[in-house]
Parts: sequence; structure tokens; C-alpha cells
Amino acid sequence: MKLALAQINPTVGDFAGNSRKIIDQSIAAEKLGADLVIFPELAICGYPPADLLEKQSFVARTQQCLLEIAEAATGATSLAVLCGTITPVPGVAGKPAMNSAALLRNGQVEFVQSKRLLPFYDVFDEQRYFTAAESQTVHACLGKRLAITICEDAWNDKNFWRARLYPVDPVEDLMHQNADVILNISASPYYRGKREIRYQMLSALARRHKVPVVMVNQVGGNDSLIFDGSSVAIAADGSCLAQARSFQEDLVVFDLDAPAPRGCAYDPRSKPEEEDAGVYQALVLGARDYVRKCGFSRVILGLSGGIDSALVAAIATEAMGPGNVIGVGMPSEYSSAGSIEDARQLAANLGIRWELIPIADIFHSHLKALEPVLRGHSPDTTEENLQSRIRGTLLMAMSNKLSALVLTTGNKSEMSTGYCTLYGDMVGALAVIGDVYKTAVYRLARYVNRDRELIPVNTLVKPPSAELRPGQKDTDSLPPYEILDPILEAYVERYETAETILASCGSQACCNLETVQSVLRMVERSEYKRQQAAPVLKVTPKSFGTGRRFPIAVQTQV
Amino acid sequence: MKLALAQINPTVGDFAGNSRKIIDQSIAAEKLGADLVIFPELAICGYPPADLLEKQSFVARTQQCLLEIAEAATGATSLAVLCGTITPVPGVAGKPAMNSAALLRNGQVEFVQSKRLLPFYDVFDEQRYFTAAESQTVHACLGKRLAITICEDAWNDKNFWRARLYPVDPVEDLMHQNADVILNISASPYYRGKREIRYQMLSALARRHKVPVVMVNQVGGNDSLIFDGSSVAIAADGSCLAQARSFQEDLVVFDLDAPAPRGCAYDPRSKPEEEDAGVYQALVLGARDYVRKCGFSRVILGLSGGIDSALVAAIATEAMGPGNVIGVGMPSEYSSAGSIEDARQLAANLGIRWELIPIADIFHSHLKALEPVLRGHSPDTTEENLQSRIRGTLLMAMSNKLSALVLTTGNKSEMSTGYCTLYGDMVGALAVIGDVYKTAVYRLARYVNRDRELIPVNTLVKPPSAELRPGQKDTDSLPPYEILDPILEAYVERYETAETILASCGSQACCNLETVQSVLRMVERSEYKRQQAAPVLKVTPKSFGTGRRFPIAVQTQV
Repeated sequence: MKLALAQINPTVGDFAGNSRKIIDQSIAAEKLGADLVIFPELAICGYPPADLLEKQSFVARTQQCLLEIAEAATGATSLAVLCGTITPVPGVAGKPAMNSAALLRNGQVEFVQSKRLLPFYDVFDEQRYFTAAESQTVHACLGKRLAITICEDAWNDKNFWRARLYPVDPVEDLMHQNADVILNISASPYYRGKREIRYQMLSALARRHKVPVVMVNQVGGNDSLIFDGSSVAIAADGSCLAQARSFQEDLVVFDLDAPAPRGCAYDPRSKPEEEDAGVYQALVLGARDYVRKCGFSRVILGLSGGIDSALVAAIATEAMGPGNVIGVGMPSEYSSAGSIEDARQLAANLGIRWELIPIADIFHSHLKALEPVLRGHSPDTTEENLQSRIRGTLLMAMSNKLSALVLTTGNKSEMSTGYCTLYGDMVGALAVIGDVYKTAVYRLARYVNRDRELIPVNTLVKPPSAELRPGQKDTDSLPPYEILDPILEAYVERYETAETILASCGSQACCNLETVQSVLRMVERSEYKRQQAAPVLKVTPKSFGTGRRFPIAVQTQV
Repeated sequence: MKLALAQINPTVGDFAGNSRKIIDQSIAAEKLGADLVIFPELAICGYPPADLLEKQSFVARTQQCLLEIAEAATGATSLAVLCGTITPVPGVAGKPAMNSAALLRNGQVEFVQSKRLLPFYDVFDEQRYFTAAESQTVHACLGKRLAITICEDAWNDKNFWRARLYPVDPVEDLMHQNADVILNISASPYYRGKREIRYQMLSALARRHKVPVVMVNQVGGNDSLIFDGSSVAIAADGSCLAQARSFQEDLVVFDLDAPAPRGCAYDPRSKPEEEDAGVYQALVLGARDYVRKCGFSRVILGLSGGIDSALVAAIATEAMGPGNVIGVGMPSEYSSAGSIEDARQLAANLGIRWELIPIADIFHSHLKALEPVLRGHSPDTTEENLQSRIRGTLLMAMSNKLSALVLTTGNKSEMSTGYCTLYGDMVGALAVIGDVYKTAVYRLARYVNRDRELIPVNTLVKPPSAELRPGQKDTDSLPPYEILDPILEAYVERYETAETILASCGSQACCNLETVQSVLRMVERSEYKRQQAAPVLKVTPKSFGTGRRFPIAVQTQV
């Protein structure tokens, strides 16, 4: 049997566009000799639709498209199509829909299997929307007994995971029905290292059950989530039969019954420097798709001469093309001449448009107007935030006038500690590197410069500074990033206690309990900023945004 | 048996403070002759703790406090305490904790019943955190067979609800075990009309099962959610045995076996004008608790002379006291003299501090700096947004310098349609009336003026205008609010289609399909603004914020 991995990039709610992609790719797969073409989870409506699922019209439209696809893609050929869709659930108790995989053949819906394991952790809320299938049934088709699963259904193997979230294993149940092959349609979002985990897990499944496993994943960015694709087919011995590219649409046809081809060894990208490339490509895709799916083609961002805005500018240029990126220098009296020159050089290196708007006069007009209120108070963060907010206001004015989305340039270390200004450097439609710690920003910047110096070397080597007061350095307010970032990762991503964190970083001379606790308090106290932040592109297991939900008005725990 | 309704206002994560309240109220109840004192759901840690529940230390701390409370409140007396807590769940599949009610007696935990129905809709995410109890058991105590339920457990009566969310009814199961009384500990958030629904539902439960029902609800604001308290005891015939106040802490002791006292007839507040008072009190409580629980005592807000900021100033003054409220007028060249005078008069009427900071010079310094970029473009919303953002920046500067939280003054009609400026009038820590439509803003303003003219009459009668360009009126961009608000309510809260909405408002001459569709498109296209909005105090069944989760980068559906 010849299968096709149809790794498409749907847009949430774009029924016409998504249906067109499914039909076109089905026709292309059939021409390449495929018997069965497989599309991702919820391919018709796009993933994640979130509360759009609460609209009856949204569910009805998905159903209607499924029938149209069945007719158009399988009505006149012998091709079978497996495609993610939504099935309404009649009845009076429970959620009104199921997350389903529909097998289309001869112009009709031949078989429907709905999802049994509905994830409800981190960014996932599927129990909010869906009723779970109570059982799963192997479906005989084209001479094979197909075990059809949807994403999470395949992620609960007790032999692979130390802790499981669900008491049942749908794959095991299906294998008791003598399936010949496990098919898995997915919308499995990317984070650093996820591709390797996913491959290992699927490979273990194939070896344990001694059948091939075929997984088709969505590709593309949808708000905060980046789907990497990386669809794969694995033989019963765990070897790689076929694979689709990461971070791009792809269509791969292969023979399920042929031996694994030479040169198809899956590259699990276990080396950290290779995964940096993955993170970079993910951010490019995430930024491009967010801007495009919002209906924009241009972006604008402030260039301070620092490393964060330099990295975001490089990502934006790769995502949108240099002609669609505007870099704006907005120096104040505290900006060094070197910083402005670094920013201008960066813009020149990238080939993007450069604007220079000094803010000193605006800053002083604010101070003058505020004089009656500020009189008698000495300068503090008020004046620093003011400069940052003036820059935010200028960027937004240019955004409005030039129809260019503002990209936010803050990194995860800043967002974690609140070392950023709400309505200032936090303005923007998308926080491109909001899930990248400062130490990783440096690694990605070096990746950008791998062939030639795009980001000026001076930007890479100078000490980080917000340049909001004379001689300011980030280390005035924060521990050095090599100390800070591991603390943040342990707390933000794993909720470790101060004591545990200290124990694992204790060998560093400047790391003591007081430092750790003060960092943890900064994280807790800046929750209010994060709740008004732009969507953050997720590239770690725990990013800020919908997957991390903390109250604001609380007694801090540290 | 004498019971005490101990309606406390906990702070999320304030273990010491919440434990102290529970112990103090237990002692007070015992002095008043109570045999059993009942506290709300999750009283020890406060509700909703959200992802704090993912920290093992948070669960462990709750457990430890429960033992301390048992000792301190019941160790030396015959008092029994029923209190909301968290129970860790050992094992390898599922969520690691349960939402529980613990019965404390003789210094020990005598009995624990965990929650069976875990809500996961609107603002509720309980399946994200908790494992559901598999069954419920009546507990014999003090000569009564107690049916102990937690909030949602009592909200699935098939005889009361047309559609049910769960296939099981825990109350019915408990009544099969011959319970004498149904106890329900709750954290049931307020919205307009909720008190009446809740009373009717509990009363129907008492009558159906022919036993008394006792419900103790949390009171107080926690971020977006306002818990109204309104704890109540209902006799087997559905009459009111005892009730606690709305929007305040309370301790009410009553005899479960005595006949219903005279004058205790529950007032379901079915008249709209009376529920306006409820909404107003809810907003006062929500604003006060948010500011206080964030560790602030002062607030600041812009006063435009318009009705929205006037209402928020009145709420803030009642919440914080006039000495803790700062009103700031920030007129531009487009502000009318009347507006500035109305704002100044409002501040005088309320007795709050008044500051006047004209923005014309700052505005022109921006235009001058932006001249190279704006050259050749005609004025549009860019210049309007600029004024709004200058005001936001000024308010934030004063907030920083004076340690006063900024209150956002936008209403739900504006937030729905995007008729508001991100980082401009949207700046602030809390959107006090972000869940109040403009037409309701007028009703609440008249309620504020019920005894004397606090909000100047001119503010109430002049046509609404943002005053961001000469002669601007809200109706330049939006349908009249009497037309707009019902459309918004139907779409935002009930997801009705344009056709259905038109059918129900079709009698209005100026309402046609084009108008309805253009409103719906405005709602969809402004999702990006709402995702960066301040937390909104929830007073309707569907408010913006955590209970309404829409993607941004989507194909619009209208």
C-alpha cells in the first residue's frame, strides 16, 4: 500500500483555503500513486480553533466541508483520504462535539474514529470543547487493518512514559484488535527537543507493537504555537521509512510494505547546536505565519543596537524579506553613539529600511508637562519607563500609518523577571523571542552570523544595557545571565523550589539562596505585565501565554 | 443542630491569613453556639489558584494548614468544621490532586469528600488541575447524615437544567444513601442574575429531595472574578432558613431544625433596577479587592468628562475612599471646555484629588519627530491613537511616581468593537467596567446619582465622543448604542449568527444585515486588542478574559 504524508499548513477558520489545500494535495498524491493520503488533526478548520468551537456554525461548516472534500478528492478515483474533522455529538450531557479522523472513499465518509485522549494541560484545553470517544475500532481498508489514532491517543504508552496522564492506552486497545499499521494524525506543537522525543516515542511504539507507525503532523504557526511538521513513517523495527520536512509544507509518498530506503535514517538532532537551528527556523515560521495570517505583509521594530532587537530583525528579514521590514532607531540622551551605529549597521547588513527618530525632545515635553506632579520626587524608574513608552508610542504611530505590524523584541529572561516596560518595549503584535532566554539569544545570534557578520560583532560583545540612564547595565538589576537563566528555567518551566534550585546551581560562587529567592520573587511580581504581553512564540516546554495561567492579585509564595 | 455559614474573603496563596480567618471565625461561631461551621471551597488556599496548583509546594502547604486548623479550631472544643482544601492523589495516571471538603473534629481530619464534577467551561479549568472523585459517601456526624458536595456537584440536576454537562448527578447519588441535609461549599462567581439562578436551583434541590440545603459561598474579588457570597440555607419546603449578605464577609448561625424565621424570605432581586445595584456593588468589591490584594492602596485614572471615566471614578471612590483616588484631566486641542469642566466638577463632587496635564505640547513634539515618516500621509486614526497613547504614558508615569494603580475606564461596547486604543485608553491594571455595555454604563451612572448629583448631569446628557478630532462622535464609527449593545450581547455572549441577531432586532428601523455583520466583523478583528487588555471584572455570563479564548491570526467567520 502506498501512503502519502500530506503535511499542510492550514489557517484556523479558513474553510475555503484549507479545503482547497486538502483537495489539491489529494489529487497530487493520487498522481504520485498513493492509495491513501493522510492529513493532520482538524485539518479542515485548522488547529487550535479554541472557542470558535463553541459556535455551532463553525462545527456545521467543518462538517459541510468534509462532505465536499469527500466528493472532490475521492469521488472519481480509487484514492482514500484520512482527514481531521469535527463530529457533532447529539445528546443532553457533555460537550457537543468530538475531535475526529474521517476516512473518505468513493466520494463518501466511509469511517469515523474520534479522539479518545483529550489533553488538558499546558496550552491544551481539549476537554473544554470535546467529548472523548469511548472506544476505538480497527478499520479494514485497502487490505490493511488500520489503527486510526489522533495525536494524544498515541502519547500514553506506559512502557515509554514514567508518569501517565490517562488510565487507558488507545494504541494498546487497537493492537488487541490485530491492527496492521498505526496511523496518527496530529497537531503537535514544536518546542526545543520535541522532534526527538516524538520520534523516539513513535519508534518505541512501532517496536513494541511490531507494526509500522505513520504520523502526519500539521505545519505552520498559529498565534503562539508553531507546528513543525516533521511527519514520519516508521517501520516495525523502528527504522525510518519516510519523513517530511520540518517547518515547511510537504507531500511524501512511500510504500508501506517496501523495506526502509537507504539514507532515510531519521536525524533526531540531538546536538544542542543543531537544535539552535531548529529554534531559529521555528521562530522564522512562527513570525511569518502570524503576520501573514493576520493579513499583513510588513513589520516594524525598534533597533536599539542591542542583541535582542538584532536577532528579531534577522528573524523578521528571513520571514518577510528585507523589503518588508522597517527598523527604527529611537535614541535618547542616554543612548551611546555606538549603539546607534550598531543599529544602523545591522539595518544595512540586513538590507532593511532604516528610520531614525530621536526622542529627547518628546521626553522633555513629557517631563515639562508632568512637572507639577513630579516636583519634589527624585528620578527613578518612572523616567526610565517614560523613555521606553515614548518609543512604544512612536512605533505604534508608524505601525498605524505604514500598515506594518510591530514586533516585540523582549526575551524570556526579561519577561520572566519583569525587566521590561509595559506599554513600552512590550508593545507589539508578537513577542518573537519571548520564549528565548538571553543566553540562548546569544547562541541564536551566532547562528545568524554563521556565514557572515549580519549582526555587528560589537552588538554581540558589549555588556547588555537598556540605556535608560547614564552608565546603566542589566547587571545593576539582575544577576549575570549565566546565573539567572538556569534559575529561571528551573522555576518558570519546572516549578522547582528555591532550595532545589540552589542545590543544582550551588557550585557557582555568586549563587546563594538570597539571589535565587529574589529572582523567584521578581518572576511572581511581574505576572501582571505578562498578562498584557503580546502573544509569545513558544519554543520551550513551558512558555508564557495560554499554557501558563497564574493569578495576579495573590500573596507571593517565595 | 446549629450551623454557621462562615462566608470569608480569602486571598489566593495567603495561607497564614486564610488559616487565621478560618480559625477566628470557627471560634466566633462556637461562641455563638454553632455545632458545625462551614467554610467555602478551597478556603485554605483561596479560589481560583490556577497554575499555582501545579506547584507541589502549594498543595503540600494547604495540607499542612488543614492539620493546623483542625488542631486550633476543633482541638479543645466540640465544634466541627467543614472546610475546602486540596488532597494529593498518589498514583501514576491522572492529575495529582483533588478538590476536597474536609470535616474536622476533635483536632483531627474526620472525613474527606472530594469533588466529583469538575467544571471546564467559561472561566473554569478544573480538569486541568484535579482528578475527579469517583463516588460520594454520606457522612454521619452530630446525629445527621450529611451529604457533602462541592460547588458544581450540586449544579447538574436533570430536573432543573434543560441541558446537562455531566452524565451523573452526585446529589441524587447521595440522596440514595438517605442523607438528612445537603451541604455545599462553593466558590461560585457572580454575574448579573446569578444570585437568583443559584437560589432557585438550590431551592428546587431542597424541594425535590425533601431535605434542607446549605450553601456557603466565598466572597471577595480575585482578579477578574467577583464572588458575591450570598450564602444561604434553605428548608426542605424551599423556604429560606438563613442567609448571609452579598459582597461582604459574614458569619450567620442558625438552627437547622427550627422552622424558617419570619422575615427571612430570600429576595431574588428579579427587578432589573435592583440588579443594577448588585452590579455596582460587585464592581466596588472587585476593584477594592484587586487593588488591595495587589498590595496597593491608591488608584489613579484619567477623567475625560465622559460617562465611562465618571462611573469608574465613582466606583473607585466608594472602593478606596476619596483620599486614595487621583483623577487626571489630560485635555488636547480637541477637548471641549465643557468636558474639562465636567471632569473637574466630578472630582470636586467625589472629593478626590484632581490634576490637570494638557497634552498639546507633547502631541506636537511627537508630530514633529515623526514628520519624516508621516510626510505625505493625510491624518487618520494614527493621530487619534497618538493622543490616546500620550495620555496612557502620562498616567503610567504618575502611577509609577505616586504608587497608584491605573484603572482602565473602557466599557464592554468599546472592548467588543475595538473602539479603543491599545496602550492608550486601554492602559491600566484593571478594566473596572470592561464587562459593562455602554447602555448599562448609563444605568449605573444614574444609580450613582440616586441620592444626589455626583456625576454631573452634563456628562449624562451629552452625546458620547472620544474627542480625538474636531466634532467627533461615537456614532461616526458605531451604530447608536441602543442598537449596538443588543447585537454585541447576542454575539459575544451567545455566539448567535448575524441572521438570528437580525431576526430578533429586526423591528428597529436602522438595524439591517449589513449593520449586524459589520459589528460582528469589528468584534472578530479586535481580538488582538483584548488579548493585551487589563483583567476585566466579570459581571455577565460571558466577559472578556480567561473565560473567552479566541485565536487572533484567523480567517474571520463573518
